[in-house]
Order: sequence, then C-alpha cells, then structure tokens
Amino acid sequence: MPHRQPSIRSDIARSTTDTITVRGRSLPDQILGHMDLATFSYLQLTGHEASPEQARVYNALLIALVEHGLTPSVLAARLTYAGAPEAIQAAIAAGLAGLGNVFVGSTEGAARLLSEGVKNCPRDGSLGTVAERIVADHLDAGLLLPGIGHPLHKPIDPRTPRLWQIAKENGLHGSYVELMNLISVTAERRTGRSLPVNATGAVAALACELGLPWRIVRGLGVMARAIGLVGHILE
Amino acid sequence: MPHRQPSIRSDIARSTTDTITVRGRSLPDQILGHMDLATFSYLQLTGHEASPEQARVYNALLIALVEHGLTPSVLAARLTYAGAPEAIQAAIAAGLAGLGNVFVGSTEGAARLLSEGVKNCPRDGSLGTVAERIVADHLDAGLLLPGIGHPLHKPIDPRTPRLWQIAKENGLHGSYVELMNLISVTAERRTGRSLPVNATGAVAALACELGLPWRIVRGLGVMARAIGLVGHILE
Amino acid sequence: MPHRQPSIRSDIARSTTDTITVRGRSLPDQILGHMDLATFSYLQLTGHEASPEQARVYNALLIALVEHGLTPSVLAARLTYAGAPEAIQAAIAAGLAGLGNVFVGSTEGAARLLSEGVKNCPRDGSLGTVAERIVADHLDAGLLLPGIGHPLHKPIDPRTPRLWQIAKENGLHGSYVELMNLISVTAERRTGRSLPVNATGAVAALACELGLPWRIVRGLGVMARAIGLVGHILE
Amino acid sequence: MPHRQPSIRSDIARSTTDTITVRGRSLPDQILGHMDLATFSYLQLTGHEASPEQARVYNALLIALVEHGLTPSVLAARLTYAGAPEAIQAAIAAGLAGLGNVFVGSTEGAARLLSEGVKNCPRDGSLGTVAERIVADHLDAGLLLPGIGHPLHKPIDPRTPRLWQIAKENGLHGSYVELMNLISVTAERRTGRSLPVNATGAVAALACELGLPWRIVRGLGVMARAIGLVGHILE
Repeated sequence: MPHRQPSIRSDIARSTTDTITVRGRSLPDQILGHMDLATFSYLQLTGHEASPEQARVYNALLIALVEHGLTPSVLAARLTYAGAPEAIQAAIAAGLAGLGNVFVGSTEGAARLLSEGVKNCPRDGSLGTVAERIVADHLDAGLLLPGIGHPLHKPIDPRTPRLWQIAKENGLHGSYVELMNLISVTAERRTGRSLPVNATGAVAALACELGLPWRIVRGLGVMARAIGLVGHILE
Repeated sequence: MPHRQPSIRSDIARSTTDTITVRGRSLPDQILGHMDLATFSYLQLTGHEASPEQARVYNALLIALVEHGLTPSVLAARLTYAGAPEAIQAAIAAGLAGLGNVFVGSTEGAARLLSEGVKNCPRDGSLGTVAERIVADHLDAGLLLPGIGHPLHKPIDPRTPRLWQIAKENGLHGSYVELMNLISVTAERRTGRSLPVNATGAVAALACELGLPWRIVRGLGVMARAIGLVGHILE
Repeated sequence: MPHRQPSIRSDIARSTTDTITVRGRSLPDQILGHMDLATFSYLQLTGHEASPEQARVYNALLIALVEHGLTPSVLAARLTYAGAPEAIQAAIAAGLAGLGNVFVGSTEGAARLLSEGVKNCPRDGSLGTVAERIVADHLDAGLLLPGIGHPLHKPIDPRTPRLWQIAKENGLHGSYVELMNLISVTAERRTGRSLPVNATGAVAALACELGLPWRIVRGLGVMARAIGLVGHILE
Repeated sequence: MPHRQPSIRSDIARSTTDTITVRGRSLPDQILGHMDLATFSYLQLTGHEASPEQARVYNALLIALVEHGLTPSVLAARLTYAGAPEAIQAAIAAGLAGLGNVFVGSTEGAARLLSEGVKNCPRDGSLGTVAERIVADHLDAGLLLPGIGHPLHKPIDPRTPRLWQIAKENGLHGSYVELMNLISVTAERRTGRSLPVNATGAVAALACELGLPWRIVRGLGVMARAIGLVGHILE
C-alpha cells in the first residue's frame, strides 16, 4: 500500500513500489523479454512501438553508426583512459564530447536536407528538381554536401547498398532514399567526381523513412558511438 | 586494387576500399540485417557471436540498465543541455561522467562479488557457505552489500523475477543467479530487514551467466545509460 | 648533449633537456616568480606580456568570472562527483560541459556586440548612434541584449562600478566601456525597465579594452569557472 | 529592501541584491582589484587569505602546472575540438577528463607521500630515515616513486631549482622540500639511476609547505590545466 511513498515521475518513466512503466508500457511485463535494445530505445525516444519492419531498419541504422574505426573520438577516449583508468565513464564521455558539428553533425545535416527537401517538394514537382536545387545551392556557396563521398570507400561505400536493400525488404525505401540517391547522382554529374552515397547519407535517409525528426539524429549517433567506445576502451 | 591505399586497422574493425570487417565478420554481409544492436555490441565486446539464448538475455540485461528515472546523471545531463543546447553530445558526456563508483559501480561490485564467489567456491563446498561468508564479511566491515535492497521497490524489485524468468527460459539460470539469491536471503536473515535482489544484482548475475568479465560491467552500464540520456535530453 | 633526444615542439611551449620555453620566454628564469597566474595565461593566450595595468584589469576580469554561486554548471559538477568520487576531474569536466551558448555564451555575445559595434562606428558618427541601432535591432527581433539586466542584483550589479573603477585607474576605460554603458541606458529608456550593466557586460567590455578577440572570451569563462568548480567540489 | 527576495546561499559565496560575498569578503570591495587570480582561488579553496609570501609561492606552483606540452590531455582536447568546434567548453572538458590517476594523480601521490611522511616522522627520528623507508617500500613493491625522474629533463628538471629558490625567498623551504630531496637522493643511491626531483615533486612539496591537504592537489592540477587547454585550443 504505497500511500505514503509518493511515486517518482518523469514523462518517460514512472515507478511505484511494485511497477515500473516506460512510455505507458510495463517494463517487466511488456518490455523485458519482448523487445530488443534498439526497439526499446525507439519506444523511449518516440513514445511509439516500432513495427517489426521498422525495428529491423532501426537496428541496422544504429549498427551502421556504432563502429567507424580509429576516429578522433576513439583516440580522445583512449588517450583519456590512458590518463584516468580509474574512470572508464570519463573516457567514454571524452570520446562523445567530440561528436559535434563535424562528425555526427554531417548525419544530422544530411537528415535535415532530406527532411526539408521532401517537405518542400511542390506537389506537381519532382524530387529531381529538388536535388538539382540542393546541389546547386551547396556548390554555389562552396559548401560540402553531407552524405556523399568517402575518402576510402570507392567507388561505393559497401554499407549503402546493403542498407538500401534492408530498407526495401521492409517497405521503407521511399522518397528520402530516392532524394539521397538523386543528390549523389546530381553532384557527380555537376562535379565530374565520384560522390557515392556514404553510410552517413544512408543512415540519414533511413532515419527520415522511419519518421524520426532530424534533430534526433545526432542523438542516435551519440548513443551508437557510446557502444562503440566501450568496445574500444575495453579492448 | 587497393595496393596504394593502405588498409586502416584496429583489432576490432578493419576497412579496405570495398570491405568493412568487424571482429572477422563482414559488416554489410554478415552483420547488417542479421544482428540486432545488442548482439552486435556483444560481438564487438567479446569477439564471439551470441547464441539466440544469450542474445535474448543480453538484450534484457541492457534494457534493464537503460532507464532509471531522474537520477543525478540525468539531472547533470539536463542541466548541461540547458546551458549548452548547441552540443547535445556534451550533455550526454556530462551525464555519463557521473556513472562512477557509486551508481554503475554497484553493478560492477555485485558482478565482482558473484564472479569471485563462484570461482572460489570449494568443490565440496556449497554456495550457501560462500553467501554466508560474503554477507558476514560485509556486515562486519560495515559495508553495504551491492545488488540487494531498494528504497522504493518493496518487498520486491519487479524487474528481478522477470529477469530470472528470462534467464530460465534461455538456460542461463545457474550458479551466479543462485548465489545472488542466497546473498539476499542470508542478508535478510542476518539483519532482519527486507533486502530483495534489486535490478543491479539481477543484471550483475546475468552478466556473469553470460560469461562477461566483471570489469566489462561498468561499460555495459555506461552504454545503456547513454541510450537513456538521449531519450531524456530529447524529451 | 641532447643530440639524439629531439626537442618536443608546439607553437606555445618548447622543451629541451635543460630548458622549457613558453611563448619565447624561459619558464624557470623569466616566468616563475616573475608573473602571477593570470599574467602567465595572458602570455600563453596572446603571445604578449601584459603591462602592469593590463595585468591588474585582466586579474579582476577573471576573478569576476570565477564564482557565480550555485549555477547549473556547479550542480552538474556536484551531481557528477556524488556518483563518481573517484574522479574529481570528471566532475569538473561535467560542470564545464554546460558552459555553452546560454551561460558563458552571453559574455561572448556581449564581447562580440561591443567589438563589432566599435569597429563599425563611422568616423564622424557617435557611439550613441551605434547603441541606438544595437538596441533597436535586438528589440525588433525579440532578442535579449547580452550584458544588461540581472534577476537579483538591482538596481545595480555591485561588480560593475568596481570593475569600471579598476579600468579607469589603469587607463583602460575607453570606447568599449562607453558603448556598454550606452547600450544599458538606451535599453532602459526604450523599455522603461531597469537594465543595468551586469558583470557579464562589464567583463565583456574589459576583455575588449584589453584587445582580446571576442572569440577568446568563452575560453576565459571556461578557465575561470574551472577554478570555481574545484572550490565547489572540494567544499 | 530585499525582504521578499531571499538571499542565495552556499558556504562559499553569498549574494543579496547589493552585495556579493566570497568566504566572508566583499567581492567588489575587498577582492576585485586587491587580489590576483591565484590568491582569490587560495581564498576560495581554503577560506583563508594568503600572505604575500604564500601568494608568490602559490602563483609559481600553479604556473608550473599549467603547461606541459603536447600531453594526451591536450591531444584529446584538440581532437574533440576538431569534431565539435561549436563547443570549446566540451573540448576542454574532454581534455580535463583524462587528468586522472596517471597524470595529475602523480602530483597527488607525491603530496600524499610527503604529507604522511612528515606527519609520521617520530620526534626523535630524522627525515632521512623516513625517506629510506619510503624508497624501500616502493622498490620492494615494484612501485614507481612519484615526483622523481623525467624522460627528457636530465640530469635535472629546470623548474625544480627555481621553485626551491622561490620557496626559500618566501620562507617556505621546510620539511616537505627536504623530504622530497631526500627521497630523490636515496632513490638515486639505491638504484644507481639519475632520479632528480621533477616539477611534479616540486609542486607537491610546495603544496604541502603551503598547508594544502594532499586531496586538494589533483584539483589544483585540473584548474591549472584548464588554463593550459584554453591556450592550446585557441592557438
């Protein structure tokens, strides 16, 4: 009888003496053993349960974000761990602190581009026209286009065709994927350089297909890299 | 033919122009679309692929670590975000920095206790004797026993029986779970107080059942809470 | 004879087996015992030695930034320390992570306003006209003016007249201080509210008088608060 | 008449509408323009005002901690800034996070050794005997002695004699400095290697001479390095 013990509240989770509820679902009865980790994070972030198709795409998207080799973020985490082995959490924190405008920001930037591009596409217009404008705007302003090109993976980033395939198999290969591909093709034609859709662009497109707002994308990158950093530090 | 482009190496991941390999598996062909996020993290951490049973238990274990309500870590992250909304990654980093000896450390402490307890159990001895000694040592030294008791969830933490059930269904309900339960029963008998196994203790026992070294447990807590913090900041 | 031991270089500091040089000065012979900490930081940041007058103003400016009571940054640091007492450095790092656009950013914003305002003041124009334009632009756009107003310190922030006095005594009470005061007076006249120059605005004006670029100001805030956070955590 | 406006309190600072007090002194009237930054930090940390002699030694001690070249901490900060240039505070936080047991911890370790060594020295005993025991204990246990030896600065760290000289000039060249020197001499005799007192050891000895508890020393290192990191990032 918990009448003197007030329940602890937040909009995400709620606890009483004998229940724990996350986004309206019982953690013990409806979540543990029923959802995988990514599906749980989807529920926590969006308040909605992912369909099996969405769950498969979301898992693939997050996995693609986890491991990016010896990035500056990984190096910062390892250097921090070397100096403060008593606090692995501080090393992971140091690694995450660098996931800003330059690195994870490019996924965010691509998601924003796609999100606004599809939204602003006139009813009687085509995504091809949208892609032309996006590419022209960036080239004219001397800006890099997020989501295309890769210093190592040429002529194609091997993650991209696989992520497209997973999207297709799960019915999530729509306008955002199409626009991302059109941006790549248009940029290649305009510059004469090889600028395939990279993992960043593919992840951004899938996040949009899943209906996730672009502002959430940096957060996805940060949580996925936290997993990757734990692996690197415990190595 | 990438002969002039040297491959980038680390013991975890390896890339050439057209392949990306993590722990010896092709990321596009053997991981994306074939593993869920937690199973991928298990591979990255241990170098081994989880069996379906292990994957189910590992997913439940991580989910149980994600969301712990308005902890000091969540508050630190939210305060940091309030001051620096331009850098969500810094807010998550600030939240993780406090996952040290006191909070996530208690899961680590419980895992260590169980790991060493089972290892040092004499062949002809019983886990009951081991539990007696552990409880006595802690009570005598005035130390709190990690993994038992909860300020709110009484008389039982609702996550624990569910996690035990998932462990049983997947054949991972062994000596570590038994020892954790024995520690709780023994401590209750010796102190006369209600000290049920809490989620921290259940998670620690399952990590041991999965064969994960106790030193890895703090890392699991940090990665799971990173997911939780993203949810809290984007709320 | 250090011929096989290469000297370690950076543009700031340089070491050989028997010398350590910072910004061209011998650390043992020309710095230790000859400069105070703030003057050393001025040398490190700017490459120039502060005059005695500049050193007095720079010391006062940094002290005014150190201690701002129980800010969100201090709370984040204390919460982090509560969870991870093994790593005081991580608690300070967590506290600093929140010194972003909102808090220390307002000092930066004020410094930028003053710096650009004085630079763009036409030769035959007056700073009063510049202040009118700055205030009008902010009010029209619904933006807060950085550097003026205070929730507690009314009708005046007691640090401001003292910082102005120190500036005067050291010959650094020039156009930037004048413009800051004009912005306050103009905003008060236009809004009918009490909007005195606060410590943020006074610090920003003095940084400009010292010739420090506005981009450096956030860094000054971070270093000063690091000192304050150490005090709070060790309390 | 601030009767409805409650004063904000902490044990360090206190504010009313027209006053700001730090450790019992009026910030505008007794601190700004009267103290240098280091002396203010001494007041904030200890609650006592430094004498002019203490202030000179404390300033030198902190300056010696600021700049240590391209350390892992500096690299982590620079890598973080490269990824997240929008948040200089996060880069500094990342750099500080690594100032743990290994780096700044060695100064803390030396201060603890000296503090306990002098305290436990029997009345009729000599510091030489204390040094013999400390060195023997460390060599027997295979532990490194903090505060002596340097990979680059040989046969002497040029900061040490200068810091000793400053201590002498200010009457703070006492038992702790003596013990530090005795440890160096004893270790050199026992190992046959060149193990001069390095800056870490000299700083630790001076902190003890100033009466600062050894637990504060890591905090001094963190605040000093924050100053150094700002310089490196703004470079």
